[in-house]
Amino acid sequence: MLTPFKATVKPTGKGVQMECESRGFKFILDEPEDAGGMDEGMNPLEAAMCATGACLGIVAASFAKAKDFTFEDFSIDMEGDVDPDGFMYVADVPKGFQQVRYTMNFKTDEPQEKCEEFAKFVEATCPICATFKEGVKVVCSGVNA
Amino acid sequence: MLTPFKATVKPTGKGVQMECESRGFKFILDEPEDAGGMDEGMNPLEAAMCATGACLGIVAASFAKAKDFTFEDFSIDMEGDVDPDGFMYVADVPKGFQQVRYTMNFKTDEPQEKCEEFAKFVEATCPICATFKEGVKVVCSGVNA
Repeated sequence: MLTPFKATVKPTGKGVQMECESRGFKFILDEPEDAGGMDEGMNPLEAAMCATGACLGIVAASFAKAKDFTFEDFSIDMEGDVDPDGFMYVADVPKGFQQVRYTMNFKTDEPQEKCEEFAKFVEATCPICATFKEGVKVVCSGVNA
Repeated sequence: MLTPFKATVKPTGKGVQMECESRGFKFILDEPEDAGGMDEGMNPLEAAMCATGACLGIVAASFAKAKDFTFEDFSIDMEGDVDPDGFMYVADVPKGFQQVRYTMNFKTDEPQEKCEEFAKFVEATCPICATFKEGVKVVCSGVNA
């Protein structure tokens, strides 16, 4: 069943800083000082990498048992390339992420091949990876003055 | 210049809960109890909507002066549709977001037409919106056991 995942964002009043809220949970996103911010939080592109890594991580944690994959611990390193010249209108280059990369580091006794197979399943299941790979329509539902 | 935006995610040890970190800033992502979590943070899909809304918001705050657009305050409501049956392998439906919607609410004396024009510029500039609309390659750089 199609389920809407919701969030509301509003300025905190401190420079370009934004308060993000969903289901009562909140965090602050900001920009470094050299990008005009107060540097009191990560920026939206870093938060998007966090959301993607956490999506991969929650899939891994949720499906490990069903996939008969055991681990003691893991971490996921995310990296996404953006050329700020794009959204700053300095150069005619893409404004969004040009590539997203991740590394999965398992602390496990499972053989390398099984780790790679599990990682492949995790990526193929991850909703945010699917969104990135397939793209999605972005619709403005209203501008209220 | 292509700039990597980085993050690291690892389990907190509390169910499927993940600690997300970028440039020293941290937040917790989790799942509601009915999705197997401890419900101590928003989930990755909600965090992705936050990152997108904050990206739109920071673009709005950063470019308002250059676009001669004045406002007293604003908020952005985000909504993205996902069918959990997809990533749960219950139905053969897309695993990712099927649509992302937003509403921009300005507290401003600017006329409606100028608000809509500014909102259009903001969406066209937002790096996360561009990523969603155009899609992006997701690359596994390594699986380390």
